Formats: sequence, C-alpha cells, structure tokens
Amino acid sequence: MPSLSDFGIVDETIEQVPAGQVLVKVDTLSMDAWIRTTLDAEGFHESVTLGSTIRAFGIGQVVASSDPGFAVGDWAYGLLSAQTMALMDAAALTKVVPEQGVSPSDFIGLLGITTGLTAWVGLVAVGEVQPGDVVLVSGAAGAVGSCVVQFAKARGARVIGIAGGPAKCGFVTGLLGADAAIDYKAGDVGTQLARLAPEGIDLFFDNVGGEILDAALDNLRPRGGARVVICGAISQYQNLNDVRGPKLYLRLAERNASMRGFVVSHHAARFGEAIKEISQLIRTGKAHLPEHVVEPIDRFPEALMMLFTGQHSGNLVVKP
Amino acid sequence: MPSLSDFGIVDETIEQVPAGQVLVKVDTLSMDAWIRTTLDAEGFHESVTLGSTIRAFGIGQVVASSDPGFAVGDWAYGLLSAQTMALMDAAALTKVVPEQGVSPSDFIGLLGITTGLTAWVGLVAVGEVQPGDVVLVSGAAGAVGSCVVQFAKARGARVIGIAGGPAKCGFVTGLLGADAAIDYKAGDVGTQLARLAPEGIDLFFDNVGGEILDAALDNLRPRGGARVVICGAISQYQNLNDVRGPKLYLRLAERNASMRGFVVSHHAARFGEAIKEISQLIRTGKAHLPEHVVEPIDRFPEALMMLFTGQHSGNLVVKP
Repeated sequence: MPSLSDFGIVDETIEQVPAGQVLVKVDTLSMDAWIRTTLDAEGFHESVTLGSTIRAFGIGQVVASSDPGFAVGDWAYGLLSAQTMALMDAAALTKVVPEQGVSPSDFIGLLGITTGLTAWVGLVAVGEVQPGDVVLVSGAAGAVGSCVVQFAKARGARVIGIAGGPAKCGFVTGLLGADAAIDYKAGDVGTQLARLAPEGIDLFFDNVGGEILDAALDNLRPRGGARVVICGAISQYQNLNDVRGPKLYLRLAERNASMRGFVVSHHAARFGEAIKEISQLIRTGKAHLPEHVVEPIDRFPEALMMLFTGQHSGNLVVKP
Repeated sequence: MPSLSDFGIVDETIEQVPAGQVLVKVDTLSMDAWIRTTLDAEGFHESVTLGSTIRAFGIGQVVASSDPGFAVGDWAYGLLSAQTMALMDAAALTKVVPEQGVSPSDFIGLLGITTGLTAWVGLVAVGEVQPGDVVLVSGAAGAVGSCVVQFAKARGARVIGIAGGPAKCGFVTGLLGADAAIDYKAGDVGTQLARLAPEGIDLFFDNVGGEILDAALDNLRPRGGARVVICGAISQYQNLNDVRGPKLYLRLAERNASMRGFVVSHHAARFGEAIKEISQLIRTGKAHLPEHVVEPIDRFPEALMMLFTGQHSGNLVVKP
C-alpha cells in the first residue's frame, strides 16, 4: 500500500500549446481502482514511472487550443492526469456534447468509460443479463457497482448488492433500488447469500475478488448457465504478485457455468447502444450516481487510498 | 490418497433377476478421475458409502434378462460398479449397437460419455474450437486429453499437448498427432508454452488444474476471445477442500477471455452430432485410443490410483 509520503506536488509552467494540442482545465477526475495497478512495476495497465504524473480519466474545459477540433469552452473527456491543467494531444480527447438532461459530469459517472460503460458492457454484452435473473453485485456501493445495480434493475433482474456496513447497504437498497443487500462485515457472505437466493444466482458481477468470489461461486444456480463476470478484484490489487485465486473455480465445471473477463474498450462497438440506454435512464430519473468529491488536487493520493479503505459510496472523484 | 488396504473384495450370489432388471457380465470398466471424488464425504458427484461398491462407467454383455428391452448377448453401457457381474435396472442401461467399424469397446473410449463425448463437448460445444486455433491440452496422454488432441487436429487446429515424461510426449506427438508436446516434468510449462505459442493460445482444455492452469492463463492470446475450458483438475482431487485456485484468473479480465465449465450430460442434445463425427474418425482411421488394461477386478483399486500417479497413456480400463 502506498503512503502519502510517496507522493508529491510539482509546479510547472505551460509556456505554449503546440499544434495539435489543447490545454484543458481539469474539472473532475474519476478515481478508479485500475489506477492503483499503474503504481506497480508490472500491473494490468501500463505502469507510471517514478516522478511522472498519475493518470486518471476525467473531464475538463478547453482554455487554449491549437487544434481545429476544439474551441475554448468545449468540454473534453479523456485519460488526463492528477493535474490542475493538462496539455493534451487533441486526438487523445473526446469532445463531450451534453444532450438534454445529461450533464458533463455524467461523462465520468453514469456514462464514463471506467464507470457506467464498464458496468453496462460487463452486465449486458459480457454477462448477457436477462429479465428475471438473480444478479449479485460486489462492491455494490462503488461507482461501477452502483451503475450495475441500477442497470440490472432497469432490465428486470432481481438484484442483490454486497457492500460493507449498514450505511452503504442502505445506499444500495435505498437510492440504488437493489432488492437486497449483504453486509460483508456482518457475517459470512455465503450464508447470507444462500438465504437470499436459495435457488442460486444467475449472474455475479465481481469488483472485489477474494473470499467474496468464492462465496458467489458456491451459490451459482446449479441448473447451469450461470455467469461470473470478472470486472475487477479490488481486494487483491495490493499484491498482484500473489493473488488469491478462486478456490471454488471447479464449481464452474460442476454447474455448467462460466467466468468471463472483459476489456471495456474491446466492446466499443456497443458503446452507442449503451449510451442511448443509460442516457434514457438519466433523463427519466431512473439512474443516479452521487459523487463523493475530494478536493483540491493535493488530496488526490488520499482519494486513491480511499478506494481501498472503502470510505465512500458512489463515484469517488477529485476536483482540482 | 486412499491406500490399497482401504479396499476389499466381497463375494455375493445373485439368486434371481427381478422384473425390469438384467444381469450384465462386466466386460470393461472405464477408470475416470471423477471416481476419486466419489470417495470423499462430499465431492463433485454423489459419494459412495463405506462398504458399497465403487461406481464406474463400463460395458458388458447381458447374460440374463427380465426386461423386454434386452436379450441375452446384447451389449449394454452404463454406470456399472467394480464387479464381475452387475444386476442392473434395465432403464439405467443403454443398449450398444456397434455400427460398421465401431466396436463395443469404443463406447467406453472414443465414444464414451466420460472420455470421447466429454472431449467433444468441451472442445466443440463449450470451447467453440475454430480452424486455425492454437489449442493447448493438459493431461494430453490421458483418455480425455487423447481424444481432445485428435478431435482438435481433425477440426483444423494447431495442437500442443502437455504430458509428463518423454514417453508420453512421444505418444502425444506420435500416435495422437499433436503439433508439439510440453513435458511438464522437464521445465517450466509457461516458458515452454511461450516459446511454442509466442502469440498466445486461443483455447485451453484443462484436465489438470494447479500451476499448469496458471501457466495457460498467462499465455492466453492477448487480443481477446480466448477460452479456457475446465474439464477437470486431477492435480487437485486429493484435497477438494483446499483447491489451489488459479492465481492468474484476472488474466481473463485483462485479455477479454473466458473460463467455461461444463457438465457433459447438460449437452446431451449434441451427442448425436458428436457420435456421428467421432464414428467417422474411427472408420477412417483418424482417431485412436489405446487401452491400458489392468486385470482382473482385484486390481481395480490399483488402477484407480494409477490415474493419479500418471503411469499410463491412453484409456485406463479394468477388465474383470
């Protein structure tokens, strides 16, 4: 686990904006678990080098442009960094054009590639959720989990969320509308799950890994066809060199089930469909993703660690 | 691990054959890894009780019948036991009618439900093998693995088999026709695999589990769509209460891949297609499954343990 003393703030002056680049005033950065893996020498994603900035998806407004595709005042989305101002290749940014009822901040929340689109792709494209499915979601009070709970409900599933503590469980069954919540701090998850879904679960959307994954595997619907979608494993990111593999993976064979991983960008062909569906949920008030805001930029390292200590509900963001 | 002293032979007299039953002279019993799991108090399959016979799939000839569906001399296939003569419900048996070029023993080999049909279902129905795929098979010299190697070659895949020792590897690349073999006793499997399949594997058919599963996960084709088919985990059957889960299961997420388990009987709708394809391979001399015969029935326990010590190639059977 990194400590706060591992991070530092550096002031730099941006003298000019070269051709093809734009200067973005960072508005909001999305704090996602994958960021932690870039701090290892060898993680899932390209690692950052010592002394460089830490990457994070975010949105901002263009304050200077040397590219014809962006004008001052445009909103832009992309892989920014822990910065107040970001000098970016225009090609690495997507112009965000808010539609009726959809705000710029939705593009790092319910419509964000690491949040809402990840949730939709995992649930729909990979997990093939069906109406009437019993869907289990770990990390249900987190950003991705919050989206999964709501999207699954909107598609007619029965949804059980796993979260830590009564406040988060209340958030999951309250604002998010899950049918039930399991407090993993209040007793054995498998026992609670077996009581809530005695015939087993059809779909498990996993953000956590570890023992919770085994509890879910042990409660897959026996008749076959259950799906485990591996989105992440936040319980294991502190030590990717010695991950606790699912001891009960043979349940997949015993129960004719599957475990499916995904890279969200490999499913870009379906983003249009996802954005249409999610935008409609936003407009009709059927999806919400409260922001847990940490500010200013100096507290970026603290926010990163909050992801792992589980102090927040909803979408953890940093505003510089 | 059971020891030979855990087993005993009991003589019983069969006085009569009740209505609806038949008496079968057991010809050949198929020694399959799942049998080991029935010796645990709680395994994959229904456990046997102390003092009862141990179940095994097999074929035999009817010597007395009190059921109109079977005549003396008919060949029958079913879940028999470690017996010389089996008194069976007729409804629990399938009459085996050998076609041209297909012998009764093929029904516990290339066409057996626990051998050839398991291989076909895992490879085709679950693994969705495609021509040109790089297919990796663990336990490639075993009964299921031998079938997988040959069926995958017949469907146009490039096949790499994993086996223990030069003799078995020679069997895999020789009689079975694999493109390459990896001797897991001769060095790190992952290193050998990376050399043989530098662009990664498309399909891994796993009979073994443990470290070999991790080596395969680490070498899945990065572009996405690779499949891991979990057929068994013979390396783990001695202690199902503390299975070594795949530490690298997150490769599924990183590489947009899936891990799929199956219960062969859930795919019974495709057995007809499988039997047609495999029978054609048998008739045209494109599939072989040598029997490693242990006899007589007294050596059944010894044969069961051979499955785990890896002393055989091909289809391990007991002839009473």
